[in-house]
Amino acid sequence: MSEKWVYAFEEVAEAEKYAGDWESTRALLGGKGANLAEMTRVGVPVPHGFTVTTESCNAYLDAGENFPAGMWEQELAAMKKVEELTGKKFGDAEKPLLVSCRSGAKFSMPGMMDTVLNIGLNDEVAEGMVKLTGDARFVYDSYRRLVQMFGSVVMGLDDDAFEEVLDEARAKAGVKRDTELNAEQWQEVTEEFKKIYKAGTGSDFPQDPIEQVKLSTEAVFKSWNGKRAIDYRNAAGIAHDLGTAVNIMTMVFGNMGDTSGTGVAFTRDPATGENIMYGDYLLNAQGEDVVAGTRTPHPIAEMEKELPEAYAQFLDICDKLEKHYREMQDVEFTIEQGKLWMLQTRDGKRTAAAAIKIAVDMANEGLISKEQAVLRVSPNDVDTLLHPQFDIAAKKSAAAEGNLLAKGVNASPGAAVGVVAFDADLAEEWGQAGKDVIMVRPFTRPDDVHGMLAAKGILTSEGGATSHAAVVARQFGVPCVVGAGDVVISQEKRQFTAHGVTVKEGDWVSIDGSSGEAFAGQISTVETELEEQEDLLTLLSWADEYRRLEVWANADYPDDAQRALGYGAQGIGLCRTEHMFFEENRLPTVQKMILADDEAVRQAALDKLLPFQREDFAGLFRVMTGKPVIIRLIDPPLHEFMPDHDEVFERVITKRVKGESDGLAEDEDLLTAITSLHESNPMMGMRGVRLSVVFPGMVKMQVRAIFEAACQIKKEGLAPKPEVMIPLTGHVNELKVIQPQLEEVAKAVMEEQGVEVEYKFGTMIEIPRACVTADEIAKEAEFFSFGTNDLTQMAFGYSRDDAEAGFLLKYVEDGILPENPFQTIDRNGVGQLMKMAIDKGRSARPDLEIGICGEHGGDPSSVEFCHSIGNDYVSCSPFRVPIARLAAAQAALKEKGVSVK
Amino acid sequence: MSEKWVYAFEEVAEAEKYAGDWESTRALLGGKGANLAEMTRVGVPVPHGFTVTTESCNAYLDAGENFPAGMWEQELAAMKKVEELTGKKFGDAEKPLLVSCRSGAKFSMPGMMDTVLNIGLNDEVAEGMVKLTGDARFVYDSYRRLVQMFGSVVMGLDDDAFEEVLDEARAKAGVKRDTELNAEQWQEVTEEFKKIYKAGTGSDFPQDPIEQVKLSTEAVFKSWNGKRAIDYRNAAGIAHDLGTAVNIMTMVFGNMGDTSGTGVAFTRDPATGENIMYGDYLLNAQGEDVVAGTRTPHPIAEMEKELPEAYAQFLDICDKLEKHYREMQDVEFTIEQGKLWMLQTRDGKRTAAAAIKIAVDMANEGLISKEQAVLRVSPNDVDTLLHPQFDIAAKKSAAAEGNLLAKGVNASPGAAVGVVAFDADLAEEWGQAGKDVIMVRPFTRPDDVHGMLAAKGILTSEGGATSHAAVVARQFGVPCVVGAGDVVISQEKRQFTAHGVTVKEGDWVSIDGSSGEAFAGQISTVETELEEQEDLLTLLSWADEYRRLEVWANADYPDDAQRALGYGAQGIGLCRTEHMFFEENRLPTVQKMILADDEAVRQAALDKLLPFQREDFAGLFRVMTGKPVIIRLIDPPLHEFMPDHDEVFERVITKRVKGESDGLAEDEDLLTAITSLHESNPMMGMRGVRLSVVFPGMVKMQVRAIFEAACQIKKEGLAPKPEVMIPLTGHVNELKVIQPQLEEVAKAVMEEQGVEVEYKFGTMIEIPRACVTADEIAKEAEFFSFGTNDLTQMAFGYSRDDAEAGFLLKYVEDGILPENPFQTIDRNGVGQLMKMAIDKGRSARPDLEIGICGEHGGDPSSVEFCHSIGNDYVSCSPFRVPIARLAAAQAALKEKGVSVK
Repeated sequence: MSEKWVYAFEEVAEAEKYAGDWESTRALLGGKGANLAEMTRVGVPVPHGFTVTTESCNAYLDAGENFPAGMWEQELAAMKKVEELTGKKFGDAEKPLLVSCRSGAKFSMPGMMDTVLNIGLNDEVAEGMVKLTGDARFVYDSYRRLVQMFGSVVMGLDDDAFEEVLDEARAKAGVKRDTELNAEQWQEVTEEFKKIYKAGTGSDFPQDPIEQVKLSTEAVFKSWNGKRAIDYRNAAGIAHDLGTAVNIMTMVFGNMGDTSGTGVAFTRDPATGENIMYGDYLLNAQGEDVVAGTRTPHPIAEMEKELPEAYAQFLDICDKLEKHYREMQDVEFTIEQGKLWMLQTRDGKRTAAAAIKIAVDMANEGLISKEQAVLRVSPNDVDTLLHPQFDIAAKKSAAAEGNLLAKGVNASPGAAVGVVAFDADLAEEWGQAGKDVIMVRPFTRPDDVHGMLAAKGILTSEGGATSHAAVVARQFGVPCVVGAGDVVISQEKRQFTAHGVTVKEGDWVSIDGSSGEAFAGQISTVETELEEQEDLLTLLSWADEYRRLEVWANADYPDDAQRALGYGAQGIGLCRTEHMFFEENRLPTVQKMILADDEAVRQAALDKLLPFQREDFAGLFRVMTGKPVIIRLIDPPLHEFMPDHDEVFERVITKRVKGESDGLAEDEDLLTAITSLHESNPMMGMRGVRLSVVFPGMVKMQVRAIFEAACQIKKEGLAPKPEVMIPLTGHVNELKVIQPQLEEVAKAVMEEQGVEVEYKFGTMIEIPRACVTADEIAKEAEFFSFGTNDLTQMAFGYSRDDAEAGFLLKYVEDGILPENPFQTIDRNGVGQLMKMAIDKGRSARPDLEIGICGEHGGDPSSVEFCHSIGNDYVSCSPFRVPIARLAAAQAALKEKGVSVK
Repeated sequence: MSEKWVYAFEEVAEAEKYAGDWESTRALLGGKGANLAEMTRVGVPVPHGFTVTTESCNAYLDAGENFPAGMWEQELAAMKKVEELTGKKFGDAEKPLLVSCRSGAKFSMPGMMDTVLNIGLNDEVAEGMVKLTGDARFVYDSYRRLVQMFGSVVMGLDDDAFEEVLDEARAKAGVKRDTELNAEQWQEVTEEFKKIYKAGTGSDFPQDPIEQVKLSTEAVFKSWNGKRAIDYRNAAGIAHDLGTAVNIMTMVFGNMGDTSGTGVAFTRDPATGENIMYGDYLLNAQGEDVVAGTRTPHPIAEMEKELPEAYAQFLDICDKLEKHYREMQDVEFTIEQGKLWMLQTRDGKRTAAAAIKIAVDMANEGLISKEQAVLRVSPNDVDTLLHPQFDIAAKKSAAAEGNLLAKGVNASPGAAVGVVAFDADLAEEWGQAGKDVIMVRPFTRPDDVHGMLAAKGILTSEGGATSHAAVVARQFGVPCVVGAGDVVISQEKRQFTAHGVTVKEGDWVSIDGSSGEAFAGQISTVETELEEQEDLLTLLSWADEYRRLEVWANADYPDDAQRALGYGAQGIGLCRTEHMFFEENRLPTVQKMILADDEAVRQAALDKLLPFQREDFAGLFRVMTGKPVIIRLIDPPLHEFMPDHDEVFERVITKRVKGESDGLAEDEDLLTAITSLHESNPMMGMRGVRLSVVFPGMVKMQVRAIFEAACQIKKEGLAPKPEVMIPLTGHVNELKVIQPQLEEVAKAVMEEQGVEVEYKFGTMIEIPRACVTADEIAKEAEFFSFGTNDLTQMAFGYSRDDAEAGFLLKYVEDGILPENPFQTIDRNGVGQLMKMAIDKGRSARPDLEIGICGEHGGDPSSVEFCHSIGNDYVSCSPFRVPIARLAAAQAALKEKGVSVK
């Protein structure tokens, strides 16, 4: 660890030399500090200041909240340097130096630690500044802000107390907006705030500016381990040992009259990705006014008229920054009496659509390579983009019926339907209970994130496209409408009204994050068509150039297969045949087969099912001609095809008690049959290949259907490629017993039909024992397909249904499990078993075809893992095929060492 | 493979040279053939003959039932050689050579292929022999035997048809026994038999002796793959690819008058092991008469009076053979007109008690080493020996009440109580349905073995100590009484009578295989006291000298622990604490705890349970002072402590339908609670450490109880060594969360009590994921204990309850699984996971204590496996501790390369 804890913005070269590279410099100075320094280096106007490193934070926390030796002295020295550069002096009434204090970790974390502005003000300095500026209103507005921010952010006081004083002051003055309060009123407010401060902390508000800096620095460090920050890092997957830096920067004021202003902007449109300047600004305001959404700002383009020179300079700087960083930037700026200052730049968050468009555009513009473009887009963005949208006709008729409640800012795209919840806790509670929730708030704060993450959509009545609600919603892909001013929320009544319609908590609403509209009631949704997403198609075509892993799809019906093909699937990795058994016109026959006492009755039922299955398979082969189609033989325990036990039991008891004999004997027989099929742990009972070994008739029928269908399709001039998959193999002898019987059926059918079909026999690998004995199994099976859902169940000893309803969420929340292993492959446990299976399997059969058909096949991290262990393909739901294509390409590019920047 | 398919008995040296060693010679010639040849080599009188090798059998079967090239020619040549040596000629009416044909695999398999005697007889030879011997009765008795045996054994005709003719013949002649039939009558019988033969096979009985030999040879080969043989091999664990040899041997006749006879004998008492000649013989009889039990033979000692010279020579030969083989021998002999011939020798089967006594005696006699003695006794014999015996008082009072039905031969020791079944199929059916069955038959045949194995005991009205029933029962440790002549069985009425008492099928009887008594009704049993078994104690003390593996016991209560100590346990490997929760006076409190809505109610219930648990543990620590006691924290899912769902459900519905409100609300609440605890796969749900993580209160109470008890015992001056075991760990983070909380409780208690106790914290390894991440887990856990029941469940994906009631038996029967993996560790699958866990675990913590506490800990093969992978100990039920001690010693001796012979 360095003995240098503090770097002036001008010392970026020194920091980079110590850190080694830019990435490490960002880790050392935090993203914000590093970028302020970098802007300084390239000549962008940045107020003077310095950064206390993340290493200081970690040292402070490790030492039980004590500054490391020398740190504070270096901070004081850096402050002196700023005084020299600015010609101002800290705590001096004549030439007062005011500074801001901001946290800044390696990764941008909105809301982790709030900013404290105007540090350096005290009673004496305030008086001096009034003399200096002649603007008492501005000075006491600034002073009250310091007391409020310092009180709530640094000292942890409840902000509501401050807000109440403001409410009263406005009421007393008979005004609606803070900007309408005058100097005296602000001075009074400041005094009131100091009283709140004293009441809350037991001390007077510190008049020593140095003490203000010291406490603020400590508060930033401590905030790293605040619950809010930890929750955020957990949600965003950020490591907990990075620490945060502290940025101290000379204050510049956007609230010094009408040649002053402040704003935030994106160098491209973060919602669509279009290459235009996008943002908000406010004249005569400080930065927090824009971000907090308490005043509705103006579009940035209007600045061209109001402050043309500053705007021109601003555009120039933005262009410079985007070229420098080769990424869309999210900037904050302030104009102090005509002079433009850049207060922050960072890579801008964006919607999924924007991420894709920006990546493709930048590659086309030559700013980045195609490989980098592929790496730039998160697979989850592709998922979001393919999220459902409202059905246009349904939306139109909802509007015609007067259900359009309001129109706000389209802050995060996608359609969401849910019941209204007016606070984050309720939204979370209902969300966890499985309800679709729309969280409705005037505006959101970092405390609300847990509710936002649990909600299907977010609607706020205040704030703009860069408000907290908008930023968070976009980051997590939650549809969001902000600033819907017509929505009037009453927290007491737990309802809102809009255009005379009252919506109560629990009522249904539908919001369109793409158009910014909010509707009463439920509107039906439709899926997005991939063909219409030109940029995405371009990106995926690039991705296909780089990936090694094939992407197949899980599809049970020809329609699914058709969709999968459209999404780029190269085969069907899983057709679940039992789904066909559940269809209404087939289930009675299936039940007859199960309940059959003798072989003749059972065979008759099977004969009746054969043509259904044959048609199912023929449809699939037709669509997938020339591509492999893996058909899994019947897998679930038979009781799943029978009526529910409790239902029949209740019927029997009721009839017995009432003495009704009508149908009783029948029900009793049914109950006996259901009871005899009962298993205490059906997941680990008579299913999969075990069922086939005991009742080979069923799977023989299925294999006959597969090959009759394949022969038929071949005769049509197409190229069926059936692969028969035996589920749940745990011992090679299971295959040795059943596979020859099935191959015999296949050969018999092909002989009958006089057609030769290309085919394979293989097995799912979903039992731990199959993994450790995969060499034996591969001697029989021509392909392996990992059933990672069952493999995860068996490897962990978790019944998924029970675990997810029980302890599993707690395990993930408490960090006992880093993630839900049913969503993302547990590389360390399940992954080791998979690796072993592949290594052993290929040792016995080098050309063994290896895939995965569990849900994990569509999870980006799991796709990367499958690439790394040598899968031939992943198979996932048709909707996730594009995601998997991108994830597969990224895995290959990362392996190749391509850098994202 | 050799080109030599046939070896004369005189060619043993040549066979051994080809085979390489004696073991391989036995594999080549079969046990019977090898021993005939070996006896010939050491000068024991054996009739001339030869052996067709097991390789011939395999070649014959592999070639689709065709003799390998040259085999038949070699067999004819060997026959010529026998003619030369005996001066007789095959098919010659003047000097007829008759031979027997016997199967003989490497391992003795009673009943696999029946013997065919008197081959070479035909109409012409018979006439010639009558002239030659002047004994037409003998000749036609022999001829009819050939037709019968050849018909039933070689041609597969139903033996009953032959037996009916015999019945009629006896009835017609007005005699009771076959020996009373005269020459003419036997000739008539022979003619009748030939008619049966023709009717059954469509051909005349073959008059060509060479054809008789050829068909017999083929029949032996084919019998290797007969269902009967396969079943036997499956039951006895004999490999299916060994093949059987064919032994052709010159006939000698024990039925040539009163200086002739035949017998079978053991060189020591096979029931007790006593060093005395033990066996049966019959004057004027052929061998089958003795073995089949159709005539009740005389004790061998009587031969001394009747045939003193032959008897002396016989004793001499037996002594020679025992010294030569250094094993107790089971011999067959025939005396033909005063001349003694040995027809067979083999290692004799024996009871468990005899096995132990013989091994210990032979070591003491210097015939074998102590190490060999330890290797000689099957651990299962120890199990059998510790089987229950009847309570002496109960037996006396049963006798006093007139329930003693009969006294027969004490053929296989142990007490058995069950319901009577009169045939093997029913015995098997009832046995599989979980009933205790006593199979009652006049005598048994190889077809009956499946029923005998399923029965708890066997009772026959005929036969002696070497009858089929006796031999099989002893081999498989089933208590057995044979030759209980007072038992009169009526198959038609499905009942037997004895001394006027009628016992119907399904009635209870009790048999004492140690005393030979059979009783009506059920007699209570007691366990055998190890202390009384001197030979066993000696053997176990020798075993303890050789073993590396410690043997611990699973015990929940002080009584169990006391017994375990008595059996030699070196620690408690598993105390299941939940058993304590099920006790009648505690269960309501446990239920109250589970149903508690708030923490206070739950804690109050826990506080109430604490003293109970403390007393439980104190008792264990007191008994086990100085030895480790592993206590497993609560493991099962909570619903197991609640009333049955269907029961409460039925009550609720009944009350609802009847409109009864009394207690309805209460029942409904209970039902809701039970339903909320319901899991679809409880085996893989909220149990083990998962329960502890979610409700730490329960396990904290348990740990407090453990350490309060330990401190109390320490204060008593004893040395408690508690080891706290956390069940079902799948991820190291589970331990990281719960273990520190528990260690804190432990430390708090020790501080409160002012006592330091030696302790460990560790975990069960029973989740596959725990095995593959054992290095991480071992960083927290100080010991591992394999829970191989759950590990087998998870590794195979089998729910034991469901599997054993469902497909698992079929899997074992069909050879899909070589054995039930819940009885014997599946080395290839589960075993690999265990090996991995040990290697990874010790890599992280070299002094990691490793044990096993699953049922497998008492299974000899599994104990051997645990030795081989490096376990420190195995823990099993107290009753199996001696078995495990012996198995552990055998594992060490085998590893050292000590040979059993």
